Amino acid sequence: MPQYTPPVRDTRFILDSVIGLDRYANLPGFQNATPDVVEAVLDQGGQFVADVLFPLNHSGDQQGCTRHEDGSVTTPDGFKEAYRQFVDSGWGTLSAPEEFGGQGMPHVVSTAFQEYMISSNMAFAMYPGLTHGAIASLLVKGSDEQKAKYVPKMVSGEWGGTMNLTEPQCGTDLGLIRTRAEPNPDGSWAITGTKIFISSGEHDLTSNIIHLVLAKTPGAPESSKGISLFVVPKFLVGDDGEPGARNGVTCGSIEHKMGIHANSTCVMNYDGATGWLVGDEMKGLAAMFIMMNAARLGVGLQGLGVAEVAQQNAVQYAEDRRQGRALTGPQEPGEKADTLFVHPDVRRMLMEGKALTEGLRALCLWSALQVDLEHAAATEEERQLAADLIGLLTPVIKGVGTDIGYRVATDAQQVYGGHGYIAEWGMEQYVRDARIAMIYEGTNGVQAMDLVGRKLAMNGGRAAQAFFKMVSEEIAAAKGDEKLAGFADALEKALGHLQGATMWLAANGFQNPNHVGAGAYPYMQLTGTVAIGLMWLRMAKAAAQGLAAGAEDAKFLEAKLVTARFYAERFLPNAGGLRRKIEAGSDAVMALDPEMFRAA
Amino acid sequence: MPQYTPPVRDTRFILDSVIGLDRYANLPGFQNATPDVVEAVLDQGGQFVADVLFPLNHSGDQQGCTRHEDGSVTTPDGFKEAYRQFVDSGWGTLSAPEEFGGQGMPHVVSTAFQEYMISSNMAFAMYPGLTHGAIASLLVKGSDEQKAKYVPKMVSGEWGGTMNLTEPQCGTDLGLIRTRAEPNPDGSWAITGTKIFISSGEHDLTSNIIHLVLAKTPGAPESSKGISLFVVPKFLVGDDGEPGARNGVTCGSIEHKMGIHANSTCVMNYDGATGWLVGDEMKGLAAMFIMMNAARLGVGLQGLGVAEVAQQNAVQYAEDRRQGRALTGPQEPGEKADTLFVHPDVRRMLMEGKALTEGLRALCLWSALQVDLEHAAATEEERQLAADLIGLLTPVIKGVGTDIGYRVATDAQQVYGGHGYIAEWGMEQYVRDARIAMIYEGTNGVQAMDLVGRKLAMNGGRAAQAFFKMVSEEIAAAKGDEKLAGFADALEKALGHLQGATMWLAANGFQNPNHVGAGAYPYMQLTGTVAIGLMWLRMAKAAAQGLAAGAEDAKFLEAKLVTARFYAERFLPNAGGLRRKIEAGSDAVMALDPEMFRAA
Repeated sequence: MPQYTPPVRDTRFILDSVIGLDRYANLPGFQNATPDVVEAVLDQGGQFVADVLFPLNHSGDQQGCTRHEDGSVTTPDGFKEAYRQFVDSGWGTLSAPEEFGGQGMPHVVSTAFQEYMISSNMAFAMYPGLTHGAIASLLVKGSDEQKAKYVPKMVSGEWGGTMNLTEPQCGTDLGLIRTRAEPNPDGSWAITGTKIFISSGEHDLTSNIIHLVLAKTPGAPESSKGISLFVVPKFLVGDDGEPGARNGVTCGSIEHKMGIHANSTCVMNYDGATGWLVGDEMKGLAAMFIMMNAARLGVGLQGLGVAEVAQQNAVQYAEDRRQGRALTGPQEPGEKADTLFVHPDVRRMLMEGKALTEGLRALCLWSALQVDLEHAAATEEERQLAADLIGLLTPVIKGVGTDIGYRVATDAQQVYGGHGYIAEWGMEQYVRDARIAMIYEGTNGVQAMDLVGRKLAMNGGRAAQAFFKMVSEEIAAAKGDEKLAGFADALEKALGHLQGATMWLAANGFQNPNHVGAGAYPYMQLTGTVAIGLMWLRMAKAAAQGLAAGAEDAKFLEAKLVTARFYAERFLPNAGGLRRKIEAGSDAVMALDPEMFRAA
Repeated sequence: MPQYTPPVRDTRFILDSVIGLDRYANLPGFQNATPDVVEAVLDQGGQFVADVLFPLNHSGDQQGCTRHEDGSVTTPDGFKEAYRQFVDSGWGTLSAPEEFGGQGMPHVVSTAFQEYMISSNMAFAMYPGLTHGAIASLLVKGSDEQKAKYVPKMVSGEWGGTMNLTEPQCGTDLGLIRTRAEPNPDGSWAITGTKIFISSGEHDLTSNIIHLVLAKTPGAPESSKGISLFVVPKFLVGDDGEPGARNGVTCGSIEHKMGIHANSTCVMNYDGATGWLVGDEMKGLAAMFIMMNAARLGVGLQGLGVAEVAQQNAVQYAEDRRQGRALTGPQEPGEKADTLFVHPDVRRMLMEGKALTEGLRALCLWSALQVDLEHAAATEEERQLAADLIGLLTPVIKGVGTDIGYRVATDAQQVYGGHGYIAEWGMEQYVRDARIAMIYEGTNGVQAMDLVGRKLAMNGGRAAQAFFKMVSEEIAAAKGDEKLAGFADALEKALGHLQGATMWLAANGFQNPNHVGAGAYPYMQLTGTVAIGLMWLRMAKAAAQGLAAGAEDAKFLEAKLVTARFYAERFLPNAGGLRRKIEAGSDAVMALDPEMFRAA
């Protein structure tokens, strides 16, 4: 069975030495994140999830959720007790606003904790995860009454939350929604329709579930502009703030999924359920996007969380399993065989996993900081820069991050050989769990289109220019440093390809938007390659400085320098090929009609 | 639920116009493969697997195999009846030798059929597939008595066969085998030990199962040189040729796997089971490699088979599902949305799937032809060339072919969006099934090492030189053709990178073998990129000739030219990056000790 140790040392390295959290200590919210508090969150929070949630990961996958005839849903054995402990210990309230009972910590700190929680048990983490998304929408678009009524108990974890977007005929294209909202005389609405793929839609963890539901009001246009957002509690909340009468929303069935079995993914039937408008009528899409952007960063973090736990176990297995001899001759002649660890191709997989996982961690934490700075930074200029950068990179973190999660999980499974394919060894679950993250909250192809079709062009390309400038400046600064110059050169070449590809898209996209679409995916990959490259430059710089200053954990820092070099040798060279794919345009991509695809 | 139509048109195109099967009509064995016979095999064989095996694919996955308390195993509902039909119709005997009841057809024809069978039901196809491997070993290394006793009923399908290599402590490193063989007074041997991951190890499809088992005889050295091969029937075969007393071999349990649930993967317990030596004592590894090389090509074909069926369904779904609007404006304004097919990033996935699947099909069929020519070609020179090429490319077909299977299945699932993650839609099974092919019969990393560590250097690099020469000559010939020149240029660049990387490995590998190991995987990918590129050059050439000659299926041929261009734009550009990874060597790959891998 797999093991898991929260990577506190790496998180600390990134927060302390790469991001430099202390530089923001005087900003609003950051005063709650003193070094000792951060240390306590990482150490104790990590311990909690490793001790309480991780042991339920495999059993939860094997058992799954059970829907009963009355529509109620039971989570796997142990989940209810673990959730109670999670709520009681307050780990779910880290970055929630203090006025609603949260701890008001910066997003960057709760993100670090959330990674550990996902590594421990991704399916479990989705229950509070979805609640956080629902809270975010209510906080921005809900009325004061709605906030007061719902948010405190959602923050505490007493109640859960969900997002209801998808219907059988519509996923990405929310204009096709058929769920209807009819006005009731008392100002509430009667919601009727069927939603599918509703994560945490029904379960036994909380005493109420607050559904946020997209629906169309009478006369609304048949497009995404006609969508409104409603809050629909499972139990109507009385004036005393307690759950009362059962509302007309039920779980029709649980989906049979490839993975995340321990999260109840429900078909939800709304049969005249009572709901209340959140924000303005027909402005539901904007409200949903508030939730969605946060959720996309959270899904990117799922890529990281699964990659980390899979990678840890692959390293351990490679160290334990004896098979064959080193190419350079027996390393342990007294044993019948050397460990897998001596084999260069095994080491290649482990190094790729390390380079991608640690690079993605730095990117996720840095991005979480931008979410904080977007609101808390001292000047309008800094706030705008943070908003630009996080807007640009959100689809990259979601798309590239979840591709990394699947890739690293698959490679970690590969290190196990045949045992990787056997359920009891636990590795195949990580592959199945990681797979969904590439699909939900907008498929990775949709993320790529968001990047090239929206984010790149926004405000005359301001965000991309800011990103390029930031990378360029850090490259320039690193060139004078002997330990960093090689990496800086390699990153400069990759950045050149990214800038070249950007110009090509700008020059050719107007004439034929399909060129933009056909290049979207490799462009997202290229951006991710450079963004993670920037993180490795920063980590290498911090490591070199630490070593020069005689830091205690020299081997840890030396490993950072080696891994940065590996990234330069093994990932940055992809940039040229990615650019060529983009600049090939869309002619061959779009030339064939459906019939011409068939070889049958 | 998925659908499947055997890609007979593409198979015919490759056999008739790319390989030119008629050129070999006068070689031994090929006389059985007249055009009308080949047409009948493809049409009727394809129809059979689509009608009989494909409908059991999803239900077989959901139900799995059942082991009973007495150690017997029941295959999923319908498998026994389908297997009976399979045996009765003779589809399993295509390329088996006529003297043992087979149809004596060339390997290239049975390979075409096997692809269809795998697409229809990979788990089912493994039952006769393993039998074929066992037959191959018996034919080459078995005594005349053993051949007469076992092979005819294995050819007919009345009996099954298995390979027993893996034990809990040894997979790749067969020197670690602990299963013992003690001599009995009558010349037979008593086999004792535990084997794991035994595909088709126990089931209810056949009246006997002939196990081929690796074990160590007394005093054998503790390395792979001490291994012997034994034939151990489930039921001892009497002088009447019928199954008699039960032998001491039982199924201890069925593995719980990520996929191929309908194939019984067994722990097999040998408790003094009676076996007979196959070939010479302590020469078991060579005997096993006969089986293994055939099996590796068969596993590469699994990559193709799963890719094809997944791809077919992704194309269909993209045509059926309506979501969003084309970037260039609504394509079907009368509908509420356009189909997925209009979206360039969906089209990118479908084109990648098409380019990889059809390219891999050409490579598999061409390789199967080399297996035939290795024995049947008219001159020693031709036979040696075929043997060299198939030896070199077997690990590439297994490693790259199964990577393609997983990738195309994953992308096909991605086209389905959320529905791809739901079991009832059938796409997630293809991903789970495809995954094992990257692991068994030697992990893909082991294939890469076989390529660079053994095949590349064999006979002074003769095979690689022959391969490079063949590709170079076809590039040179294509350059004068306006329709092919662009592709030829792109392939020439990729070949240059492959040759450069080969020289780098040759120059640096002696000094440090870890350089070879660290570059093995990208080298295998680079070789595969060029080999499939060569196939696209040939397909483009055949298509251009067909169009010039006014062939009927012009759209099919035009699609080949477009897809070749797509391959040149989207896959050949990877070559430069792959070369750079190889030439980066092993320093960064091998620098870290286990402790330095840990971020925790």
